[in-house]
Amino acid sequence: MSHVPSDIEIAQEAKMKKALEIAEDLGIEEADIEPYGHYKAKLSLDILEKKERDKDGKIILVTAINPTPAGEGKSTVTVGLGQALNYTGRKAVVALREPSLGPTMGMKGGACGGGFSQVVPMEDINLHFTGDIHAITTAHNALTALIDNHIHRGNELNLDVRKLTWKRVMDMNDRSLRHIVAGLGGPLQGVPHESGFDITVASEIMAILCLSDSIDDLRKRLKKIVIGYDFSDHPVTVADLKVEGALTLLLKDALKPNLVQTLENTPALIHGGPFANIAHGCNSVLATKMAAKLGDYVVTEAGFGADLGAEKFLNIKTRAGKIKPSLVVVVATIRALKMHGGVPKDELKEENIDAMKKGLANLEKHIESIKTFGLPHVVAINKFVHDTEAEIATLTDFCNSKGINVELAEVWEKGGAGGKQLADKVVNVIEEEQNNFRHLYDLETAPEEKINTIAKNIYGAQGVDFSAQAAKQLEQLKKHGWSSLPVCMAKTQYSLSDDPVKVGRPSNFRITVRELKVSAGAGFIVALTGNVMTMPGLPKHPGALDMDVSSEGKAVGLF
Amino acid sequence: MSHVPSDIEIAQEAKMKKALEIAEDLGIEEADIEPYGHYKAKLSLDILEKKERDKDGKIILVTAINPTPAGEGKSTVTVGLGQALNYTGRKAVVALREPSLGPTMGMKGGACGGGFSQVVPMEDINLHFTGDIHAITTAHNALTALIDNHIHRGNELNLDVRKLTWKRVMDMNDRSLRHIVAGLGGPLQGVPHESGFDITVASEIMAILCLSDSIDDLRKRLKKIVIGYDFSDHPVTVADLKVEGALTLLLKDALKPNLVQTLENTPALIHGGPFANIAHGCNSVLATKMAAKLGDYVVTEAGFGADLGAEKFLNIKTRAGKIKPSLVVVVATIRALKMHGGVPKDELKEENIDAMKKGLANLEKHIESIKTFGLPHVVAINKFVHDTEAEIATLTDFCNSKGINVELAEVWEKGGAGGKQLADKVVNVIEEEQNNFRHLYDLETAPEEKINTIAKNIYGAQGVDFSAQAAKQLEQLKKHGWSSLPVCMAKTQYSLSDDPVKVGRPSNFRITVRELKVSAGAGFIVALTGNVMTMPGLPKHPGALDMDVSSEGKAVGLF
Repeated sequence: MSHVPSDIEIAQEAKMKKALEIAEDLGIEEADIEPYGHYKAKLSLDILEKKERDKDGKIILVTAINPTPAGEGKSTVTVGLGQALNYTGRKAVVALREPSLGPTMGMKGGACGGGFSQVVPMEDINLHFTGDIHAITTAHNALTALIDNHIHRGNELNLDVRKLTWKRVMDMNDRSLRHIVAGLGGPLQGVPHESGFDITVASEIMAILCLSDSIDDLRKRLKKIVIGYDFSDHPVTVADLKVEGALTLLLKDALKPNLVQTLENTPALIHGGPFANIAHGCNSVLATKMAAKLGDYVVTEAGFGADLGAEKFLNIKTRAGKIKPSLVVVVATIRALKMHGGVPKDELKEENIDAMKKGLANLEKHIESIKTFGLPHVVAINKFVHDTEAEIATLTDFCNSKGINVELAEVWEKGGAGGKQLADKVVNVIEEEQNNFRHLYDLETAPEEKINTIAKNIYGAQGVDFSAQAAKQLEQLKKHGWSSLPVCMAKTQYSLSDDPVKVGRPSNFRITVRELKVSAGAGFIVALTGNVMTMPGLPKHPGALDMDVSSEGKAVGLF
Repeated sequence: MSHVPSDIEIAQEAKMKKALEIAEDLGIEEADIEPYGHYKAKLSLDILEKKERDKDGKIILVTAINPTPAGEGKSTVTVGLGQALNYTGRKAVVALREPSLGPTMGMKGGACGGGFSQVVPMEDINLHFTGDIHAITTAHNALTALIDNHIHRGNELNLDVRKLTWKRVMDMNDRSLRHIVAGLGGPLQGVPHESGFDITVASEIMAILCLSDSIDDLRKRLKKIVIGYDFSDHPVTVADLKVEGALTLLLKDALKPNLVQTLENTPALIHGGPFANIAHGCNSVLATKMAAKLGDYVVTEAGFGADLGAEKFLNIKTRAGKIKPSLVVVVATIRALKMHGGVPKDELKEENIDAMKKGLANLEKHIESIKTFGLPHVVAINKFVHDTEAEIATLTDFCNSKGINVELAEVWEKGGAGGKQLADKVVNVIEEEQNNFRHLYDLETAPEEKINTIAKNIYGAQGVDFSAQAAKQLEQLKKHGWSSLPVCMAKTQYSLSDDPVKVGRPSNFRITVRELKVSAGAGFIVALTGNVMTMPGLPKHPGALDMDVSSEGKAVGLF
């Protein structure tokens, strides 16, 4: 058997075009391109103004069944479908999230796709890229420093140090920073207070950057951030502190979408990467809108399964960006379906039709959810080496029997050529099927109603219980006038329920909301169910132990 | 009176050449240039190999009298002299430090020079620039996270959590982070320990980056970093943790010098910016060496006065980089000399010859120090608006009477044209005066002897006292084999002594070393005198309150 090249080997062999050339092919004027090295570029927001009257491309949202440790390859299919659309003569642009460095140093590897469906330069994208996440870290922590300084120097705003909601962030997996006490050491070292660090991608500023549609909108949203409460329990905002200008300045370049390419030179905008639990888990509104001006088709993804990322894409991002999606691709793998049917990870290589049939219930639920949004959809089977013909036939038969569009995608192994059928299917369905896109809930319904609607319609829950704390916070949210914001659910990605071990399609369960908080700048209410982690830790053997730079100056140990 | 333009107004009006054009003019091949936007670029280290046999340009070090709140304009003179050398037909390259964002958000403004002697694009340089400092922050905190994770997961290396010396960094002024307790919240949240944050430019990794002469040297130095001590009091290093490869990977692009330009299109390499107290306060060895391959003259600066930055440049940086300086420019202003003569800041506009004469003692001491190093030198008078002819004459007469080269520099007001005489003088002195450059001390002398030599010869102290703690640490340093490292003095910049209020040329004083620590990766022993701040705070009215982005997308409120 010949050597199977690793993702980084394939990526480092890529025949990349210069970013300027990719941009030129898209009809972008040189003045609107800022190169970052030869293969990355930032694109000016002026492009949106210049192309305001141009037709928008069709937006294809890629989502998946609930993730399992077996992997679904959602990014791989997103990149592969983009390549396949170009391979079949269409003009497509991919829009993805930026990976966070913390998990890269840990175990996850990057978020660049895999095999012959990757975005490149993979090592740059997985490391510091164009610095957007660093700019967000800086803006977040500048705000914290300005808050602390305000309190230290007299506290004119009467901030209650026990009720500060704005903490700190770092783009790193460091569990020791989850809970800290800061301001120790005496009167010259600030005011003692409890604090902690989230990973940067969990920062509200990341969500804000991704939901803003202009620099003015960015500033407006930053102003609304609630940093804490005063001694009369009134919310105190960035506007009260008068530092929205400085934060906007720190973010002015980070707001510009980043242009890179796939292994087959399909243009890719990689921009923003909010956590899909505490935030909405989609790349930026600006990148998606710009991609729609640059291509006839935009292939974009949302984090985790359709119960989380897609729901938030469809209820939150589409509202913020006035975006109308054309179709949803639901990625499934034989392996993951078998896990949803109860097979443990080390037995996935064996054929197991019964387990697969059981696991199909998970896929079926997600398809029902997409139907609730009135959107055309296609199931993409992301093919893995050990999938048997009988297993694949079981999945396609199931879809056919239910009238669900389905195609096999061999994009990992073959790149765009392996996604030809999928691309044709997607285009046909967009052209032929009716699009009745609607949001799931009306913004004017009460927050508890919105949560109830999501839990029942998307998760299949029987209802929602609110903890005593959450019930009290619900009252506060209403009192402060935040009732009509959409809801951003924070829930385990592994189950349709709020219990990560309930795989497949659980029934007879209720969702417990333990805490509610407002992200007034991002413009949503976060409903926390279960234990949501906003600062990951490193594993026993962190990926960092295997990383280095080769004698030719290339990255070693990224994957 | 016509409107006097501000620094940012002048900078934003600059007629910049594209970075590619600047690089081409320097004879750099396109493959060795990575553009970052149109006006910044990173330069490949391959340039040094390709030009290995080329002659080196002359290195001119710009230093100053002890800084005062009146400002000396050392960066302005550095940039202005570079411009003046080109204006007078020579080929000069400027090499400067990168500014830290923390002080920019506070009060200091950037470090880009002033008036018509600035480096541009000033707003990019003062904000995230090419991300070097963010990469250092990331590498530093990745190491901390890996240390914490190691302890959390069994502590094979037997690290004593009470003796961790590696803390955390942030490129922000946040006094509340100086002393923290981390790892709180129970067994899943890491191991409780005391920690704290320094500003990133105080990180040993910043010093390492600036003293490395190749990627391999960088890796070697990172390996040697002491992260703490085990229960048997043996030092534990990055090599023991086996993460030097990951840290090198995080820093591989940050190691490449950044090319920008001055207002008059003089090439400028801005790279690295270690604190001048806890570290050595000079731009990177690689930038200085590369500048010497690209120009016939390199104008570079070192932080604070000649007692700190220049001493460390001459004893530490020259050794690490095998650099031989050709001449030292000592910047003085009438205003600052008057402050050294006892005039308070609000009376500086009035002529005061007597105070100036008194303040000249400070300048004289620094000239004596430069002579100790055997280097040709020129005093540059950085002209300010309110300087009187009599005051300037007093200063030039003083220099002339002592046989000290002196020239007036009007580079703030007139750019390169205002530095014509200074440029000519500098070139003449280099050509005509003898250069007997020698280090101040031999590396093999004991650390206490090195400190003594610096204190007596450079500060003019009568001797050095070691605290009980420092005496004990001295024994430890010897025991662990670090005796032959050079010494990096951490001392107040405002006085030749370790007492910031003793301006002018204090006498009859002793220096107290309260603590000694090793920066084994950077390759020096830090001797701390007085209270050295490694994490600044924000002022009552932080600069951030006045910052914003204009409707044209330009920075507002940077200066």
